Amino acid sequence: MMSQEEPQEGLSTLTKVTGPSSWSRVSCPCCISNHIEPLVLIQLAENVQPITKQWIMSMISAPVKAGGAQLLVHPGEDMKGDMIVVAAPRCTLLRVTEDLGLCKTYQDGNMTAFSFEDRDNFCNIDNMQQFLTLAERQYIVKHELDSMRAMEDQRIPGIPAPKGKLKARESILQKLEKAGVIRNITPLHDQKLLLALGKQWYTHKSLWGQPLDSIHTYFGGTIAYYFSFLDFYTLALFPPAILGLFITFFLPSANFSNGNKTDSEPTLPKHDDEQPSVSSYMVQAVFSMLWSTVFMELWKRRSAALSYHWGTFNLAEQFQEPRPGFHGELSTNPVTGRLEPLFPEWKRRLRIGVVSVPVVGVFLGLVVMGMAGFYFFERLVSGWHKASESYFTAVLLYLPSIAHILYTNVLGNIYRNVALQLTEVENHREASSFDYHHTTKVLVFTFFNNFAVLFHIAFFKEDLPLLRKRLSSLLIVTQVVNQFTEVVVPFLVDRFLTSADRNLKEDDPEVDHLQAQGSLPAFPGLFAEYIELLVQFGYLSLFSCVYPLTAPLLLLNNLTEIRTDAYKLCKLFNKPFSAPVANMGVWQLAFEVLSFISVMSNCWLLLLSPQVKELTEDAGLSSSKVLVIAVIVEHVLIMVKMILAVMIPDEPDWVRIKREQIEYHSMQALKKQVTLSTNVNFLM
Amino acid sequence: MMSQEEPQEGLSTLTKVTGPSSWSRVSCPCCISNHIEPLVLIQLAENVQPITKQWIMSMISAPVKAGGAQLLVHPGEDMKGDMIVVAAPRCTLLRVTEDLGLCKTYQDGNMTAFSFEDRDNFCNIDNMQQFLTLAERQYIVKHELDSMRAMEDQRIPGIPAPKGKLKARESILQKLEKAGVIRNITPLHDQKLLLALGKQWYTHKSLWGQPLDSIHTYFGGTIAYYFSFLDFYTLALFPPAILGLFITFFLPSANFSNGNKTDSEPTLPKHDDEQPSVSSYMVQAVFSMLWSTVFMELWKRRSAALSYHWGTFNLAEQFQEPRPGFHGELSTNPVTGRLEPLFPEWKRRLRIGVVSVPVVGVFLGLVVMGMAGFYFFERLVSGWHKASESYFTAVLLYLPSIAHILYTNVLGNIYRNVALQLTEVENHREASSFDYHHTTKVLVFTFFNNFAVLFHIAFFKEDLPLLRKRLSSLLIVTQVVNQFTEVVVPFLVDRFLTSADRNLKEDDPEVDHLQAQGSLPAFPGLFAEYIELLVQFGYLSLFSCVYPLTAPLLLLNNLTEIRTDAYKLCKLFNKPFSAPVANMGVWQLAFEVLSFISVMSNCWLLLLSPQVKELTEDAGLSSSKVLVIAVIVEHVLIMVKMILAVMIPDEPDWVRIKREQIEYHSMQALKKQVTLSTNVNFLM
Repeated sequence: MMSQEEPQEGLSTLTKVTGPSSWSRVSCPCCISNHIEPLVLIQLAENVQPITKQWIMSMISAPVKAGGAQLLVHPGEDMKGDMIVVAAPRCTLLRVTEDLGLCKTYQDGNMTAFSFEDRDNFCNIDNMQQFLTLAERQYIVKHELDSMRAMEDQRIPGIPAPKGKLKARESILQKLEKAGVIRNITPLHDQKLLLALGKQWYTHKSLWGQPLDSIHTYFGGTIAYYFSFLDFYTLALFPPAILGLFITFFLPSANFSNGNKTDSEPTLPKHDDEQPSVSSYMVQAVFSMLWSTVFMELWKRRSAALSYHWGTFNLAEQFQEPRPGFHGELSTNPVTGRLEPLFPEWKRRLRIGVVSVPVVGVFLGLVVMGMAGFYFFERLVSGWHKASESYFTAVLLYLPSIAHILYTNVLGNIYRNVALQLTEVENHREASSFDYHHTTKVLVFTFFNNFAVLFHIAFFKEDLPLLRKRLSSLLIVTQVVNQFTEVVVPFLVDRFLTSADRNLKEDDPEVDHLQAQGSLPAFPGLFAEYIELLVQFGYLSLFSCVYPLTAPLLLLNNLTEIRTDAYKLCKLFNKPFSAPVANMGVWQLAFEVLSFISVMSNCWLLLLSPQVKELTEDAGLSSSKVLVIAVIVEHVLIMVKMILAVMIPDEPDWVRIKREQIEYHSMQALKKQVTLSTNVNFLM
Repeated sequence: MMSQEEPQEGLSTLTKVTGPSSWSRVSCPCCISNHIEPLVLIQLAENVQPITKQWIMSMISAPVKAGGAQLLVHPGEDMKGDMIVVAAPRCTLLRVTEDLGLCKTYQDGNMTAFSFEDRDNFCNIDNMQQFLTLAERQYIVKHELDSMRAMEDQRIPGIPAPKGKLKARESILQKLEKAGVIRNITPLHDQKLLLALGKQWYTHKSLWGQPLDSIHTYFGGTIAYYFSFLDFYTLALFPPAILGLFITFFLPSANFSNGNKTDSEPTLPKHDDEQPSVSSYMVQAVFSMLWSTVFMELWKRRSAALSYHWGTFNLAEQFQEPRPGFHGELSTNPVTGRLEPLFPEWKRRLRIGVVSVPVVGVFLGLVVMGMAGFYFFERLVSGWHKASESYFTAVLLYLPSIAHILYTNVLGNIYRNVALQLTEVENHREASSFDYHHTTKVLVFTFFNNFAVLFHIAFFKEDLPLLRKRLSSLLIVTQVVNQFTEVVVPFLVDRFLTSADRNLKEDDPEVDHLQAQGSLPAFPGLFAEYIELLVQFGYLSLFSCVYPLTAPLLLLNNLTEIRTDAYKLCKLFNKPFSAPVANMGVWQLAFEVLSFISVMSNCWLLLLSPQVKELTEDAGLSSSKVLVIAVIVEHVLIMVKMILAVMIPDEPDWVRIKREQIEYHSMQALKKQVTLSTNVNFLM
């Protein structure tokens, strides 16, 4: 049990330079080791007094019972004295692994929820670098730093009273960040591992395949899930891409030639389109619907398998300490029996229902109003221009667009703040729940912003040629802009505005390497990346029957997207913390909702297509009869989709069996536990 | 631990007459008791040889390891020798309680999954009559009888070879029933308890309140859930009933006077209805939608609370032995590690998807074809009658109706058999899963049969006056017929064709009492009762805006329904076995689906109402615009419904906390278990 950790290849060189002697001491005998791996870098503000730094370091190394994090600290020893390097002793790593509910390989080869008491039966337990991934070790350090609490009302030394005052049970880290003492907390890169990963990932010659396990090991759960999804999604794009190409190049083109028709008087049907285009149109719409359903169901299965593989299928966040921002009345948690702040669920639901939902609704209303205003003023201005034809009115023509863009941006910025505030007010206990509600709010708004115009064109203007034009320009412009901002700009920055780290040589002091890592910009999170995929998926599943080239274009985009995202993550930003997660979280839901809306959208687009209109007119059906039929078809398709979703199990059989095994064993254990402990008491 | 059971008031008198001496012996010392409670009566065919009876009795009392049921048997000692009375020893009761995952009151007052090893910490453990309800004890006996298996290929003594041949692991009970040896297995009534329950339940003077806990104790889970739901539903009917009465009598009537309009040419709007009727119409439709959602959500909460209260919230059916009809390859269950037949899940899903769904679809198609045929021939015949006006054609007028009724009945009978066969082929492992799939199949068909005509009238003929007439006649006729068949007939039967039991006096031999119990007809199950409620609920939520008196009529019906159902159950049928269950099972889903469809139905009915048509025509909207608006309104309403459903938590907070407590404890137990057992081994 008291094993010494063996030297690891992937270890940073800090240990060589500074030696274990400068690290804080550990009391636990099993945690003494010659090799301490620096995991996390805390950057302080430059004007922080030594006494404050000393206090922070003492808190970080203090035991959990004293409100500390029970970690190892190193003063960094640079000139400015504004760094703290944090490492984790073995016991802390193992204890938190258990708290998080992470699963690890048991001696029988199954993934099993880690238990500290039963630690000797887990594989690789003697080697923390193999037992936990780098990302997990770093997340554990962050988790422990986050959970530092003031045990009583006290003052932070060296900070004046109002800012430096800590109330009992307040989060120390949050306070320090608010007071501006801590600038930044970053997990440290391991340059050797990073180099190896990069080689495998984005400088690799082959077009296909990402080293997902290595990504998970190095960058952690959320990021690995993003890349796994991107991978799967790109693969899934092949069938629609092939169909799209086939329809575009081998079938008679389905161009929407009867463009400028008005709503009130239907124009005469034009006969320049051949019959097959209706069927190709319908094939595309029905395929789109089925594809999006099957894709999401298969991804769920893949996601469940990954979650088992990565040991995150049994996370028990609700039994952990609440997240730092959570507040409530201090009381005994009825479930775990621990003393902690509690906040009743009904109050949260009430706040969501009475405050958040209406406020979000108002903002969505403002988006719609903005759009309506835009159309109104555009019509007004173009009317003036037609009437006068002067230069002044020609300039005025741009005004509505500019005003609309400004309005949208300002609204978006205000909304982002409001969404964060609202979610804070909802006072979620778990970090995942907070993220869920926050992301949902931003998501709904972003989605509305992106698709409101397209829906308006499709279903109110009923102008399919315009929709087609808009869609193709959106896809091509977005693609070009993305490629430029994501490939060219980073490449140039990397090449010419060489980052500080590049100039350092291997034998430069470790401190400078650390300093250099802290100097990169913070990783902006995966929100923008997911949104990009979601909007893409939206174009594809909602409107692709209008523009069959959507899928091939997206496929092309994604193949490069994978490399550029990887490059960005490895080279251009600080390494982010990444929590172990069991799925994509709220994004899963977002994609599913979208694939649900796609059924309706495809159905109505089909109805609007000139070919179908022609067909129904030839058949002598009144427009209201056609609508009734469309409604029935839509409802039937939704039913088919739901049946399909139920029929494809959400997890592969082998994962289900593993999950049931764990359920069964824990049920058995619960029944036997009391007896055993009684026996033990008796025997002792 | 070795406590003697105290004499119980509610005990049957069999023990007095026959004495404990005639019962089979128990080996376990803690199970020896002076009072053995007869629980279940097995009736054999009259020509069964004594050697067969002897063999059956020996198997029932044999230990589980030998394929027996480890129960107590009594030969019944009647003249014909065709009865076996079964009781259960304490150990068997407790063991099966653990296997079923029943929760019982722990010493700390919480409901906890019963653990045999930890039995001494549960309340009432010394008194089986208090620890387990009568229904539970009887269900346990049935469960054990069902799980009797042949340990090897053998012959049942006294039965000729083909029928009497048992294969290894074949269910003995199923074989005996198939071979006609066992006529009937009935749980025994406890006349004193029954009398007390009946007094509380249906002869009580007050209109409200059912003794739900006593019903649960006496009749068991499924039946108690039915009556709880009936109770809750009847209570929930008050708001719509009051609204319906208010609309009918206090608001200007919304009679649909423009009856015979044709579809193609809309008639001129008639102005004999006042303006408010539109709003009353809309109020009714929107209220109906909200009501059905809130009702179902609140019922879920109530259901969760009941499930905790009755100790069934932790049932673990998937870890039990498979149901008797299940077959598969004998192999080790990967979850529990027991040797049992296994059948892969994908094969089952394949059979459902490839066989069951299409076959059910064909039958639904036949229903629709039948309806279409009926309408076609009716029009044909009435055309002939108009042309010739002869007596012959007047008689012919009835022919389509008669043919349709015959067709529907024959189809229904065939379908019932097919549904059972299909579900057998699907080879479900758990009884609940079998019931689920079987009920769903029958349900879909029954629903189609009941509502297809109404939907046809509402949405194809668009003839609201006819819908209204049909609905009111259905409601009133069904009510009268129900009251007659459910109250009057049973009352008459009970009074004049006095059942055998009535004529017996207290001091008649116990055997005659038993004989009398076996002579009643078998309880037909709750399917018909639930279907009745579901169809009612359908009338109410789907079409009530057309006929506002629906709710008051249903309320009246339900108030009597409660009493008549109770009377029927207590007096007119054999006591049924009733499994402990955690909810209404498939019926929950059925009601929810119906309340979902009700949103669409109400929305479209609103659109069809002459008042709304008038309004939109006045506003100058084209009919296709109106349809588009309706589609949007429908989708928004569905979204509102879904948000509402998500917002109302499915279980009360206190149940959630209890559930999480159990999850937490079993998680903790799992982690500690291995260490403890290691320690125990070490200490020993």
